[in-house]
Amino acid sequence: MGPSRRSAVPPFAVMDVLAAANARRAAGADVLVLCAGEPATGAPADVRRRAAELAAADGLGYTEAVGIPALREEIARHYGRWYDVEVDPRRIAVTTGSSGGFVLAFLAAFDPGDRVALARPGYPAYRNILRSLGCAVVELDTGPEVRYQPTPELLAAAHAEAPLAGLVLASPANPTGTMVSPAELTAIADWCAEHGVRLVSDEIYHGISFAGIQAATAADQVGAIAVSSFSKYWGMTGWRLGWLVLPDDLVDAVDALAGNLALCPPALAQHAALEAFTPGSYAAGAAAVATYAASRDLLLARLGDLRWDPVAPADGAFYLYGDISATGLDAVTYRSRLLGEAGVALTPGTDFDGAAGHDWVRLSFAAEPGVVADAIERIVAWQDAATTRR
Amino acid sequence: MGPSRRSAVPPFAVMDVLAAANARRAAGADVLVLCAGEPATGAPADVRRRAAELAAADGLGYTEAVGIPALREEIARHYGRWYDVEVDPRRIAVTTGSSGGFVLAFLAAFDPGDRVALARPGYPAYRNILRSLGCAVVELDTGPEVRYQPTPELLAAAHAEAPLAGLVLASPANPTGTMVSPAELTAIADWCAEHGVRLVSDEIYHGISFAGIQAATAADQVGAIAVSSFSKYWGMTGWRLGWLVLPDDLVDAVDALAGNLALCPPALAQHAALEAFTPGSYAAGAAAVATYAASRDLLLARLGDLRWDPVAPADGAFYLYGDISATGLDAVTYRSRLLGEAGVALTPGTDFDGAAGHDWVRLSFAAEPGVVADAIERIVAWQDAATTRR
Repeated sequence: MGPSRRSAVPPFAVMDVLAAANARRAAGADVLVLCAGEPATGAPADVRRRAAELAAADGLGYTEAVGIPALREEIARHYGRWYDVEVDPRRIAVTTGSSGGFVLAFLAAFDPGDRVALARPGYPAYRNILRSLGCAVVELDTGPEVRYQPTPELLAAAHAEAPLAGLVLASPANPTGTMVSPAELTAIADWCAEHGVRLVSDEIYHGISFAGIQAATAADQVGAIAVSSFSKYWGMTGWRLGWLVLPDDLVDAVDALAGNLALCPPALAQHAALEAFTPGSYAAGAAAVATYAASRDLLLARLGDLRWDPVAPADGAFYLYGDISATGLDAVTYRSRLLGEAGVALTPGTDFDGAAGHDWVRLSFAAEPGVVADAIERIVAWQDAATTRR
Repeated sequence: MGPSRRSAVPPFAVMDVLAAANARRAAGADVLVLCAGEPATGAPADVRRRAAELAAADGLGYTEAVGIPALREEIARHYGRWYDVEVDPRRIAVTTGSSGGFVLAFLAAFDPGDRVALARPGYPAYRNILRSLGCAVVELDTGPEVRYQPTPELLAAAHAEAPLAGLVLASPANPTGTMVSPAELTAIADWCAEHGVRLVSDEIYHGISFAGIQAATAADQVGAIAVSSFSKYWGMTGWRLGWLVLPDDLVDAVDALAGNLALCPPALAQHAALEAFTPGSYAAGAAAVATYAASRDLLLARLGDLRWDPVAPADGAFYLYGDISATGLDAVTYRSRLLGEAGVALTPGTDFDGAAGHDWVRLSFAAEPGVVADAIERIVAWQDAATTRR
C-alpha cells in the first residue's frame, strides 16, 4: 500500500539538529542549543500555579470545540489591551497550538488546488501543511530589498500569473525576525481584500519586538484570519495552546471542523491560560523579552566578527538569520561541523528556503543570555579556525 | 471569499445537545446528561499527582513530534501486557488525542479521491475528517444481522463497485458498542491485506467491555493502523492524548506530518501519562468499567419498559443504541422533548446514521450509576406519558 503521495512532506531539519545535539550531550559533550524556537523561561508563575491546582483536582473533560467561553473572552479583551482593537469573543477559536490553528484555518479557507502565497524564506510548516492539504504553494522570493516580506507588488505579480486564493504573512517572521509596519500591513490587507485573497496573518511572535517597534494585528482587517499562540510571549510551547481570530464568514466552518478534527484543545492548558492575562503574567513575558533584547544586542555588537552578511533585520521574534557564505561552507556542512567541532547547534537555512537557504543559518537567541554569549565566542573562534583551515 | 467547499462538514449534534442541556441547567433545571461519551471519573490519581508536580515545576517545552521516547516505550509494553503482542516502540506515535491520530493516519494513508469504507451507523468524525481531506466515504449499511460491523462480504461488495483504499473499523464501536471477535478481526484484516486496503482500527474503547468479552488489537495485523487513546479507559478526555501503532511503511510519513501539522502532543499530558501504566492506574480504569457494567445491567433489565427495540448488543464502550420508533417520535423530536419535558439529555441517532438515524438514540452510561438509574425512570415515565398523549 505504502504512504500517500500527499504525506511526502519533509520533516523539520531543526528536529534532526535537536536529535544530533541531544545525542552529543548524551555522549558527554557540552552543547549549546540555539536551534529551537523555544523560550528558556517556561510558563508564567500564575499559569503554573493554576495548572497545578487543576491537575490535582482534575475532572477536566472535553470543552467546547473552539475553547471555553471564559478564555475566548479573555483573549478578546487582550486585543483591546494590546492593540486597542475590539474583537467579538465569537470570532475567537482557541486551538491546539497555532499549529492546530493553521490546519483549521487552511482547511476552512482554501480548497484543493487553491494557490496560496508566502514569503521565501519562511516557516516550513506553512508550505508543508498547505501541500499536504492539496493547496498550491506560491513562494514569493523575498530579499533585503523588501526586508524579506511580501509586498503588494510581489502579490500582484504572482496574482497575474494565476489568481491567488490566499497569503500567509508572518510579522515578526520566522526565520528572519523582520516585521511589516502598520501601514504596510494595511496596504497588504487592502490589496488582499480587493482581490479576494484571504490573508492569514501569523502573529505568534507578537509582544516580542525590539527598539520600540510595535506589531500591528490583522484582527481588524476585512476578511483576514489572525493566528496567535501562548507559546512564545508566554513561554508555553509544550502546552499546545493557540488561537484564531476569525472573520465572520469562517466562524461556523472552523467550529464544525474543530469539533470533528480535534474535539477540543487541551482542557488543563485552557483553564490555566486564563491566568496568562494577569499583570504578573504579562510582566513575566516582558521580562523574557528584555533578556532576548540583551542577547540581541550582544549579537548585533559582534556582527563584524561573525562575518554573517547580510543578516535580516531582527525587528522581533528571537532569531538572527544570517548569510554565512563568507565562510565558504554550505549551511548543512556549517551546522554539522559547528555542532561537532564547537558544540553549538544552529538551524541550517535549508529548512526555510529551498532556493538560497544553503547560504544561511538561523540562530535562536531565546536561550539563556549566558548561553548566547558563550555561543557567540565559540562560533567566532570556530569560524576563524575553520575558514583558515580551508 | 467565503468558506472552502471542503469545510462544509456538519457539526456534532451532540455538541448542540450539550449546549441545550447546559442552557437548561443554567436556567435552574435539573438535567441528567447522558449525551457525551465521557467518563465521569476523571484521570487516575497517579496521573493527576504527577501532572500537578510537573505543572508547578514547568520547564515543559516541545517534545519529539511523535512523543517522548519513554511514553512510546510504556505504550509498547502495554501491548505486551494487555494483548500479549510485541510492538516496537518505533511504531508508536503519540498524538493529540485519537482525533489528532486519525487526521495523521488518514493523511498518511490516503490520497484525495481514495475510497474509504466504514460502518453506518458510526462515529461521525470519521466521515467528516475523511471528507474534509478529500477522501470518498463509502458507508457500509450494517444492521443487527452483522451486529452493526463490517464483514468481508460487505467489503467485497463495496470493493467490486470501485476499489477501496481503506477501511475504518471500530470495536467496540460508537454508537453501538458492538465488537468483532478476534477471528472476525483477523478475517477482516486478512481481506484488507489481500486486497491492498488499509485497515484503520479504532481501539479507543479497549478495556471497556462486558460479560468477559476481550477486544483484539489490529496492532499485529499486516499493514494495519491501530488507533487508541487515554480518554476512555483512563478517563483522560480533556488531556487530549492518544496514540497510533503504525505499520513500518507509515512510520516516517506520520513523523514528518506530525512535526508539521502539530509540532508535538501536549507535553504535560505526555509526561503525566507515564503514570497511566501503574497498577493503581490500571485498577482505576477497571473500577470505572465495573461502574459501567452495573449501569449497563440496570439498562438491560429495563429494556422491556424502555420499549427500545432493537438495541445494539452493548458488548463494550458505554453506549446503548436503541430504536425508539415504537414511541412514534423521530429522534430529533424525541431528544428535544425528552430534554425539555423530563430533563434527560441523549444524542439523536442522526449524528451517527444519515439513513436510519431518525429512529435511534444513543444513551451514554459513562455517567455516575445513580444518574443512569434516575434517567431510566425519567425516560420510561416520560415515554409512557408522551406515547399516551400522542
